[in-house]
Amino acid sequence: MGASPLPSSVERLIEALSRLPGVGPRTAERLAFHLLRTPIVDAKALAGAITTMRDTTRPCVECGHVADQERCWICRDEGRDAGLLCVVEEALDLVAIERTGAYRGRYHVLNGTLSPMAGIGPGQLRMRELFERVAAATAAGTPIREVIIATNPSPEGDVTLLYLQERLGDSVAAVTSMARGLPFGADLQYADAVTILRSLEERRGVE
Amino acid sequence: MGASPLPSSVERLIEALSRLPGVGPRTAERLAFHLLRTPIVDAKALAGAITTMRDTTRPCVECGHVADQERCWICRDEGRDAGLLCVVEEALDLVAIERTGAYRGRYHVLNGTLSPMAGIGPGQLRMRELFERVAAATAAGTPIREVIIATNPSPEGDVTLLYLQERLGDSVAAVTSMARGLPFGADLQYADAVTILRSLEERRGVE
Repeated sequence: MGASPLPSSVERLIEALSRLPGVGPRTAERLAFHLLRTPIVDAKALAGAITTMRDTTRPCVECGHVADQERCWICRDEGRDAGLLCVVEEALDLVAIERTGAYRGRYHVLNGTLSPMAGIGPGQLRMRELFERVAAATAAGTPIREVIIATNPSPEGDVTLLYLQERLGDSVAAVTSMARGLPFGADLQYADAVTILRSLEERRGVE
Repeated sequence: MGASPLPSSVERLIEALSRLPGVGPRTAERLAFHLLRTPIVDAKALAGAITTMRDTTRPCVECGHVADQERCWICRDEGRDAGLLCVVEEALDLVAIERTGAYRGRYHVLNGTLSPMAGIGPGQLRMRELFERVAAATAAGTPIREVIIATNPSPEGDVTLLYLQERLGDSVAAVTSMARGLPFGADLQYADAVTILRSLEERRGVE
């Protein structure tokens, strides 16, 4: 094989690109060459966008969504129904629900699901923040009426749903889950808006 | 739909990522969130790799390959056979040939193919540089013995091949092209008719 046929700076970029999810070595090569041929302003715009995003964002202290201030724009929006809380696994699930334009409540991002197999318990997720949020709302005389647990229809999502139902059942008037219009094994963040909308409209009490 | 559910810096990164070849809006979203969650040093390493590559590379003045000096490492390598020249469409084709470890000649990168439909003539490619290179080698008393035209087996690749064969035929002892036939590991029953026809036409005696 001999030496690499490419300058080390190109090799380093190919290596960095191949660490991205779903990007194999050949795709990384193709992307690197695209970035080599594209106008330099476009290539640097991508590099700058990565740096700027990391330098200017952080998790919202209240809900855990991506924010560019201490609290995200949803938590700051007084027009949002503070009595309705939707619990999601990831911020991308929140994005998918927001795309329907139909939900006017607030969110809580767990940053994952319970997974005894992978050693992920309540302590590794934003569970304590959720319970404190619910308790604080009750203490303030503005209790949360309903918590919609919008975990993915997967074994881990269901374990998380059942755990939250048990933990929240006494402190919240209604704990609901997304209707299973979603096919089992699907990923919420890839579902189409109509499916998500149906699942929201037909949410049911957890028995 | 309303406002974007994401900070503008995240939206800008998603937009920049979706300009990459083969990256749709959902993949761009997934990549952006990966870059949001990955350790900050990894995200910044990718940004830095893009910038460094663009700041430190340029086309080799001789062959057009990616280089970090005026001439690429292949053109600088005195051990390479200067009498053998392989013409490729793209630098990635050169990389693929180098991977075999079997070729010891030099290269010339065209940066594309002739394509009358797309308005790409010889002037848009590194053709003049090729003819000048061949003429200069002859004038220096070290003529190029053989030019291998390794364009892709496509209509545009074939047009380019025929054009170069005509233009170089008088000034170079041998103009050759890559053998066309069944790729290693291919299944004859699934091969397309053109490939089978070529393989039949160019059949060779079994030694």
